[in-house]
Amino acid sequence: MPPRKIKIAIAGVGTVGKGLLDLLKKYENKEIKIQISAIASRKKRKFLGKSFKNTVFFDDANELLNFSDYDILVELIGGDNGPPKRIVFDALNKGKHVVTANKALVSKFWHEILEVSVKNNCLLKYEASVAGGIPIIKVIDEFLLSNRIKKIYGILNGTCNYILTNMFSFDKDFRTVLNEAQKLGYAEADPTFDIDGLDTVHKLSILSSLAFNFNNDIKNIKLEGIQNINLLDLKFADSLGYKIKLLGITELKEKEIKNAVYPCLISKESFIAKVDGVYNGVVVESDFCKKSFFVGEGAGSHPTATSVLSDIISIAKKQSNEYPKELKYNKYIYSRLEDRWGSYYLRFTTEDKPGVISGIANEFKRFKISMKSMLQKERENSQSKNATIVITTHNCVEKNMMQALRRINRLSFINKKTIYLRIEDFK
Amino acid sequence: MPPRKIKIAIAGVGTVGKGLLDLLKKYENKEIKIQISAIASRKKRKFLGKSFKNTVFFDDANELLNFSDYDILVELIGGDNGPPKRIVFDALNKGKHVVTANKALVSKFWHEILEVSVKNNCLLKYEASVAGGIPIIKVIDEFLLSNRIKKIYGILNGTCNYILTNMFSFDKDFRTVLNEAQKLGYAEADPTFDIDGLDTVHKLSILSSLAFNFNNDIKNIKLEGIQNINLLDLKFADSLGYKIKLLGITELKEKEIKNAVYPCLISKESFIAKVDGVYNGVVVESDFCKKSFFVGEGAGSHPTATSVLSDIISIAKKQSNEYPKELKYNKYIYSRLEDRWGSYYLRFTTEDKPGVISGIANEFKRFKISMKSMLQKERENSQSKNATIVITTHNCVEKNMMQALRRINRLSFINKKTIYLRIEDFK
Repeated sequence: MPPRKIKIAIAGVGTVGKGLLDLLKKYENKEIKIQISAIASRKKRKFLGKSFKNTVFFDDANELLNFSDYDILVELIGGDNGPPKRIVFDALNKGKHVVTANKALVSKFWHEILEVSVKNNCLLKYEASVAGGIPIIKVIDEFLLSNRIKKIYGILNGTCNYILTNMFSFDKDFRTVLNEAQKLGYAEADPTFDIDGLDTVHKLSILSSLAFNFNNDIKNIKLEGIQNINLLDLKFADSLGYKIKLLGITELKEKEIKNAVYPCLISKESFIAKVDGVYNGVVVESDFCKKSFFVGEGAGSHPTATSVLSDIISIAKKQSNEYPKELKYNKYIYSRLEDRWGSYYLRFTTEDKPGVISGIANEFKRFKISMKSMLQKERENSQSKNATIVITTHNCVEKNMMQALRRINRLSFINKKTIYLRIEDFK
Repeated sequence: MPPRKIKIAIAGVGTVGKGLLDLLKKYENKEIKIQISAIASRKKRKFLGKSFKNTVFFDDANELLNFSDYDILVELIGGDNGPPKRIVFDALNKGKHVVTANKALVSKFWHEILEVSVKNNCLLKYEASVAGGIPIIKVIDEFLLSNRIKKIYGILNGTCNYILTNMFSFDKDFRTVLNEAQKLGYAEADPTFDIDGLDTVHKLSILSSLAFNFNNDIKNIKLEGIQNINLLDLKFADSLGYKIKLLGITELKEKEIKNAVYPCLISKESFIAKVDGVYNGVVVESDFCKKSFFVGEGAGSHPTATSVLSDIISIAKKQSNEYPKELKYNKYIYSRLEDRWGSYYLRFTTEDKPGVISGIANEFKRFKISMKSMLQKERENSQSKNATIVITTHNCVEKNMMQALRRINRLSFINKKTIYLRIEDFK
């Protein structure tokens, strides 16, 4: 059988795009020949070698709107508007397949983008948009499709995991480790998108929409980033048997969806706690397979490009769904974070005098919160006026906890706003 | 689009077969309708409900040789000869697709079975044959196919992992935990196949053949089981920072394949050490994705049936390779275990008198083996004449270690044959 030829147009040659070119250079397959018919790249680069003999180059991705000599558009620019959005919708409307790493676009336009792809009988693949080196989309879409998924949670942002891991391992504060991560290329010059949790929100939204077959609105994902995590909290968490990780959590209970992104304490013995450094890790809980756990380098040029190339080959081999899904979405309501039933880690900065604990305990009693453990840190030196008290609670309703904290923060002996973190009892 | 109908013939309704029937009862899909056209089951069962309205029943799987009203044979009997072998080859020769959980058959007849499937342009899928609840075949065959795989190692047998985990956790000896596992259904009445490591050999052979595209001969996999692992060794390993796990390891270095199955010590901090109980875990190291790690329930009715059903749906949707691989195998040589370069854990049972350590050390010196650590256990009571000495070594050649041990075992103060276990430095 002669090899099947497939033509791809690549838009964007940044980190992932460069990785893809590296992989394509090495990729040999007797059944599939991948030809790069066009590359759109804003930056002027030298593309040499036989792979680019028949390649058209564009400075501006918009020029792909007037170009049709390809089977698959490989969109690696990123962002939910402008050229990437235009060329993806244009390609699908032209009857071309699309492979993309664009989490912002796919999460925001989930419904629209699937609809256009189904209408035009094209395949849309986005493995690279979530946890680059982990085939989590394939797992949900192909392996677990006979299972009912109950819950997915995971570490979906390598930058945040690197920062939290290294703060604790090397006894350094947030800013120091962030600077180091930037120097090493593990964090962007403007790291806000990662640090604030928005990157995790996009990825979680895709997992949630796919796993529960509904049209998730990213605005409904509550988010807290890691910008306020203190080395002190990592150390207290450790002494209590926990690690602090930034998790994305999506869970379906009856008709109610819980979607949230926040840093939280998880037992050191849990699967997910063992995912350190730049690794991502995802746990999927389902009715028949119970618990499955996947770990890989979440970002990085080559792991993400592996996802992109696997999607391209999938389409070329028609491994993908020949019969696109009927687009009939489930309807769910979103649970409110204030209704969360769970336990909390609290760090109080107080005056060092008698009556502090009883003052806090009285407010807890008022809101039906019971303490599970209490640690007190000695003052660092005799000049320091602040005492540090760490309390973990038994399960309570988040709304009550927030009300209690508002009152406690107004007490005369509280010297700084109290730090709170959720504790998740993942095993 | 009307749903695509696919007819399956199921051979064998044991643990996995029953699980598959459970899953099929719940499985609903607008695009694919799966109809069970035949079931072959030796045991008389009552099959009720609308799923079996059009089903033919056979007592003997051989009767499927004269039956052709199906698209996919689902072979869940197991074993590398007799009816399962006959019906699988017969189905492929009839131009039918095959889904099987039969690790013995697939590992032994890798080359033949692939050849017949390619010749007849049929699909052969065997996700369920290795680590039931982990889509490891899909990962290697579809996700990582642009990567060069360097090494795969993992815990591939849930029974052994359950036994080793529970011996240590509950301070019990091998026989006690094995009996408990049998009562709970985690171990077979005759557990030899699991305990001796042969089950792991079959699974490892499939991973090795697939990952390195060659025709592995299972006879070339060195194997040691867990039948001689002592609670004492689990405890010593723990105090040295290790766990003991039964691993299958396949590695390609230049043109040399290392394939082995043995219990070994691995750092408690490694990914794979964290896989306890009935879970399986597999680490794949590749050039572009570096390290990927997958965990799931390795055996059990429903996780394995999930793999079977995922294969069935894959074929129904033609997600699988439309263009079967060209069957051109690589040729490799097998490395010899006696050439292994690595470190060792040794437990000596000796007389409790001066000169013992120096006697052992002299033999080590003769064979260029250097000690890394030494622990001595106090005699349990004054009646006991035996002292226990545990030594770990730096890296050395296995052949030298075996020669040294042969000589040491003949020394007058050695009261029992010395226990040795390999230490693997997986991170």
